[in-house]
Amino acid sequence: MASLLLSRRDLDFLLHDWLDVGALAAAPRFADHNRETFDAVLDACERVASEMFAPHYQKADREEPRFDGERVHLIDEVKAALDAFCESGLIAAGQDYALGGMQLPLVVANAGLAYLYAANIATSAYPMLTLGNANLLLTHGTPAQVKAFVEPELQGRFFGTMCLSEPQAGSSLADILTRAEPDGDSPFGPRYRLTGSKMWISGGDHELSENIVHLVLARTAGDDGRPIPGIRGLSLFVVPKFLVDEAGALGERNDVQLAGLNHKMGYRGTVNTLLSFGEGTGYRPGGRAGAIGYLVGGLHQGLACMFHMMNEARIGVGLGATALGYTGYLHALDYARGRPQGRRIDAGGKDPGSPQVPIIEHADVRRMLLAQKSYVEGALALNLYCARLVDEARVADDDAVRAELELLLDILTPIAKSWPSQWCLAANDLAIQVHGGYGYTREYKVEQFYRDNRLNPIHEGTHGVQGLDLLGRKVVMQDGAALRLYLARVRASIERASGDAGLKPHAEALSRRIDRLASVTAQLWRDGEPGLALANASVYLEAFGHVTVAWIWLEQAMATRGRDDDFHEGKRRAARFFFDWELPRVDAQFDLLARRDRGPLDMPDACF
Amino acid sequence: MASLLLSRRDLDFLLHDWLDVGALAAAPRFADHNRETFDAVLDACERVASEMFAPHYQKADREEPRFDGERVHLIDEVKAALDAFCESGLIAAGQDYALGGMQLPLVVANAGLAYLYAANIATSAYPMLTLGNANLLLTHGTPAQVKAFVEPELQGRFFGTMCLSEPQAGSSLADILTRAEPDGDSPFGPRYRLTGSKMWISGGDHELSENIVHLVLARTAGDDGRPIPGIRGLSLFVVPKFLVDEAGALGERNDVQLAGLNHKMGYRGTVNTLLSFGEGTGYRPGGRAGAIGYLVGGLHQGLACMFHMMNEARIGVGLGATALGYTGYLHALDYARGRPQGRRIDAGGKDPGSPQVPIIEHADVRRMLLAQKSYVEGALALNLYCARLVDEARVADDDAVRAELELLLDILTPIAKSWPSQWCLAANDLAIQVHGGYGYTREYKVEQFYRDNRLNPIHEGTHGVQGLDLLGRKVVMQDGAALRLYLARVRASIERASGDAGLKPHAEALSRRIDRLASVTAQLWRDGEPGLALANASVYLEAFGHVTVAWIWLEQAMATRGRDDDFHEGKRRAARFFFDWELPRVDAQFDLLARRDRGPLDMPDACF
Repeated sequence: MASLLLSRRDLDFLLHDWLDVGALAAAPRFADHNRETFDAVLDACERVASEMFAPHYQKADREEPRFDGERVHLIDEVKAALDAFCESGLIAAGQDYALGGMQLPLVVANAGLAYLYAANIATSAYPMLTLGNANLLLTHGTPAQVKAFVEPELQGRFFGTMCLSEPQAGSSLADILTRAEPDGDSPFGPRYRLTGSKMWISGGDHELSENIVHLVLARTAGDDGRPIPGIRGLSLFVVPKFLVDEAGALGERNDVQLAGLNHKMGYRGTVNTLLSFGEGTGYRPGGRAGAIGYLVGGLHQGLACMFHMMNEARIGVGLGATALGYTGYLHALDYARGRPQGRRIDAGGKDPGSPQVPIIEHADVRRMLLAQKSYVEGALALNLYCARLVDEARVADDDAVRAELELLLDILTPIAKSWPSQWCLAANDLAIQVHGGYGYTREYKVEQFYRDNRLNPIHEGTHGVQGLDLLGRKVVMQDGAALRLYLARVRASIERASGDAGLKPHAEALSRRIDRLASVTAQLWRDGEPGLALANASVYLEAFGHVTVAWIWLEQAMATRGRDDDFHEGKRRAARFFFDWELPRVDAQFDLLARRDRGPLDMPDACF
Repeated sequence: MASLLLSRRDLDFLLHDWLDVGALAAAPRFADHNRETFDAVLDACERVASEMFAPHYQKADREEPRFDGERVHLIDEVKAALDAFCESGLIAAGQDYALGGMQLPLVVANAGLAYLYAANIATSAYPMLTLGNANLLLTHGTPAQVKAFVEPELQGRFFGTMCLSEPQAGSSLADILTRAEPDGDSPFGPRYRLTGSKMWISGGDHELSENIVHLVLARTAGDDGRPIPGIRGLSLFVVPKFLVDEAGALGERNDVQLAGLNHKMGYRGTVNTLLSFGEGTGYRPGGRAGAIGYLVGGLHQGLACMFHMMNEARIGVGLGATALGYTGYLHALDYARGRPQGRRIDAGGKDPGSPQVPIIEHADVRRMLLAQKSYVEGALALNLYCARLVDEARVADDDAVRAELELLLDILTPIAKSWPSQWCLAANDLAIQVHGGYGYTREYKVEQFYRDNRLNPIHEGTHGVQGLDLLGRKVVMQDGAALRLYLARVRASIERASGDAGLKPHAEALSRRIDRLASVTAQLWRDGEPGLALANASVYLEAFGHVTVAWIWLEQAMATRGRDDDFHEGKRRAARFFFDWELPRVDAQFDLLARRDRGPLDMPDACF
C-alpha cells in the first residue's frame, strides 16, 4: 500500500523536476550531496515516521500528558519514537559537519520532516522546538553556550523550548513582565536571575531528555532601577532546567517550576505548560530564589534575536499545517476509492439492483478531493520553494544576491505560515466530509488532523498578526523592495508560461491579479493612514496568499511540460482547478481593499 | 450579566418587529396566544437552558456515554436536565391541546429551543429526536400508535429515535438491507419481524426514559419472496425497546440490542449507537428472534413518510448549527470586551507605558466579530422565517396558499439546513480565533462549539446531498414553480427596499445577483445533461445560500427603519457588512456555474 503520509512521487517531482535541488550541490557546503543522499534521508524519514511516529498518533491524543504534582507522564511510545529519531542523526541533518550534522539543504530536510509531521505532529513538536532553539543559540549564543546547550540538543540528549508568551502577553510581547536581574558573571556569560510566568510553553516539562533548555524573553531594569518598558526592554536568556558546568555535566535543579498543563483541542500529545520562573518554592539554586539564566546576544536585543528565528519557525508552522492537510487528503482519497455508496447520476445509475460505486465516482467527491489536492500540493510546493530560498541565501557568494533572497523570503514568510494554516485546515475539513459520518468519529484519523491543524492559524503569530506583518512591514520595508522582487519573480514566471498555449490562459489570469495586487497595495498606502490601511490587512493577506499559490501552481504546471503520464496530467488538472475555482476568489477581495472598507474599523462596540 | 446563549433583544426584534408573530394569533389555532404567552415560553426556555442544560455542557463532553456490555451510563446531569425540561411541558409546546400541548407557533417554539441548543446541543438532542419521531407518528401513525407511543413521548416518558442509516447505507438509503417479515396482526396494525443493523442512531440506548421508540426503515419482500430492491421496497416501522400493550403498560423486552457506541469529535453527550435488530441472542420476544415492529403509513411508503419529516428535521439541524454559532459569537464578544492585549495602531498606540486596550479595539477583531454577527443573526433570521412559513401553511384556509407556502419551504429547506451548518461553523472558527490560544483550550467553550458544530454539515443529508436536492429537485420541480415563488418574494423585498435611499445600494446589489441566479439556473439545465448540471451542485447551493441570506439581511434592515438606537444601528451595520464582504463572493461562483465547469466531473481517478 502506498504511504498515506505524503506522496513520494510528488516530493520527487517538486525537489528534482521543479526545484532542481541537485544544483545546490554546486555550493561547497552541499558538495557531498546528490540524489542518492537525498533519497536516503527521505527514505529514513519515511521509515521512522511510519514505524515509530504514526502508530501512537491517536493514542497520544487519547492519553494526554498528565501532571501528578511532581512529574509529567507521557505514554512510553513518545520517548521511543524520539529516541529512534535522535539516534538516526536526522535531528542534526541540516547542521554543520563540525556539529555532527549532515549539511543537508533545508529544502530536503524539510521534505523529510514533513513525513514526521504527517505521521504525528504532536510528537514531532519536541525535536522541532529543540532545533529552533539550537539554531537560535548557534546564531546568537557564545561558543560556551553552544558547547553546553546546543551540542547536547543536536545529539538529542537535551530538548529545547521557546518561552515568549505570558498569561497577559500573547501577541503583545511589549507587555512581557518576566524580570531579569543581574547576578554576576559565569562561564556562559552574564548571569541573571529570572522571575515570572510563561504561558503556552510546549515541551516545558517532561522526562524525555536529560535536560530542558529554555530560551526566555525577559525584561531588565534601566539605570534608574525601573523596568525598561516596551520591546526595547527585552533581552533573551538561556535558562536550563538543570544547571550545567562547563564540561556539560548536569548540576543543581534550576528554579523553574511547572505550574500547570494546558489542555487543548488538538496537539494533545505535546505537553503544553504554564511555567513559573524564580518562585523559589521548589528549588533554590545557590541557596536562593530566582531562575538562573545567561544572556544570549546583546542586552535589549531579545526581540531582534527572536525575530531572526521567526522566519524559520513560521515556515515550520506552515510545513506542519501542510503535512496535516496532505496526509488528510491521502486518507480521504484512500477512503473514497474503497467506500461504495450510491450510484452514478447519469444513465445506468438508476437501477437499484446494480452494485454501488466507490464514492470517488461521484463528481462532488472528486470536487472535494481536487480541492484538497490543489491546497496541499500547492502548500507543499510553496513551502519547499521557501526552504530552497533559505538554502540559496546560505550559500550565496554575493552579498547583494543574498540580500535579495532574504528580502524575498521575508515577504513570503507570512504567506508560507498563514496560507497552509488556513487552506490545509480547509483540506482537513473536506477530508472529514469525504468520509461522511465515519470521518466525524475518532475511529478515523481525519477528525484529529482537523483538530490538530486548528492550532496553526493561532501560534507563531495569528492570522491577524501575519496580515499586519505583511501589509504593515513586509510590503513597505526598504521602500517596497521586497514587493518589487516578488512581483518581478511572479511576472517572470508569467512571461515564461505565456509561450505555452496550454498555460497561456493561466498566465493571463495571474497577470491580471498580480497587476491588481500591485495597484491595490499602492491604493491602501496612498495617504498614509495606517489605521485604515491595516484594518483590512487580513483580507490582504488572504488575497496575496491565493495569488502566490496560483503562481506556485503555474510554476508546477510548467515543470510538467512534455510529460503525459497520469501523475503529470493530475498536476496540470489540479493547477487548472486552482485557476478556475480558487484564484477568482481574490477579485471580490481586491474590490473590497480598493474601496478601503471602513465597516469593521468604524463599528462601535455598543452596536454589537 | 447578559446571557451568552442568545440575544433576547435580537429574538424580540426578529419575532415581533420583523416577523410580526402576533399576527399569527388571528388564526383559530393560535388564538389564545399573544406577546405575553410568547414571552413566558422564551423566559422558561432561557431559564431551563441556563440552569439545567448549560452547566453540564463541558462535563458531558469529557465524560462520554459508556457501555459496560449491559447498560449505557450517562452523567446524572443529563437526566436531571431532561426531566426538568419535560416537566415544564415545553417538549409538547407546539402540539395540539388535545395531546397536552400549548398550540404554540413553531416560530416561537424554535426560538425557545434555540436556547436549549445554545446551552447544550448534545443533551437537547434527546427531546428533539423524540419530537421529530412523535410528529412523524402523528402524521402517519394510527390512533392506537399515537396513543401507545406518541402520548408518552409528549409527556417525556418515552424517547424516540430515527433509524435510517446502516453501515453500508448512509446517504444511499436505496441500499438499506434491514429486512421486515410479516408476523400477523396486532392492535397497532400489521406486525413484522425486523432483522438488520442500524448505524449512527442517536439516543439508540440509554435509561433516560421508560422506553425508547425506534422508527425503522426496512425492506419487505415482493410476491416472489425476494426483497424488493431500491427505495420502493422500503417501509417504515415503529419498533419499541419494550413492547407495550394497548393500555400503554410496558411488557417484554424487544429484540433490539446495542452493538456498540460511536465516539465522535463532538456531540459527545448524545449517545450514538450501532443497533442490532432481530439477532435473537439477548432477547426473544414471543420466544423467537426478530424485533417486533408495526407498520407506519402504507406498505412501501417508508421513504415518503420520512421525507415528510425531513423539512422539519433539516430546519432543526440548521437551528442547532445557528444556536452554536450564536452562543460562540456572544462568548467571543464577551471575551473581546474583557481581554486587554496590545495597543491601538493609530496615534497614541506606540507608548508601551500606556495601558493595553481590550482587543475589541482592534479593527481585525471587530472584523471577526462583525462577520460572526452577520452569519449568526442572518442564520437565525432565516430559520425563524422558515418556521413562520410552517405556521402559516398550517393555518392557511386556502389550499392554493398553503401549497405555495409549502413550495417555498421546500426550496428554502436545503438552504436553512446547509447555510448555518457552513457559516455558523465558520463563526465558531472565528470565535476561537478571537480568543487566541485560550480559545484552543478546553478551558473555554468555543472549541467545543466548533467540534460540536462540525457534525451539522454531515447529518440529515450532507452538503453534497443538499446541493443535489436543491438543484436536482427543488428548483426544477413543478416546472420551476418553487424557484419562481422564491424569486418573486426576493424581488418584492428588493422593490420595497428600493424606495429607501440608505438601502437602495443593497437592493441593487441583490437585484443583480438574483437575476444572475435565475439565469445561471436556466443555463445549468439548458440541455438536460444532469450529470454535468449536478456536478457543481454544491457551489450552486453555496451561492444560492449567500443570495438568500443577503435577502434576509435586507429584510432585517428594512425592519429597523425609523429606529436610531445602538441595537438597530448594529443591525444596519451587520447588513452592510454582509452586502460588502459576503455577497460579492457569489460572483465568482456564478461565473463558474455559467461556464459549467467540467474539472471535477472529468478528473480521472488515476490522476489524483
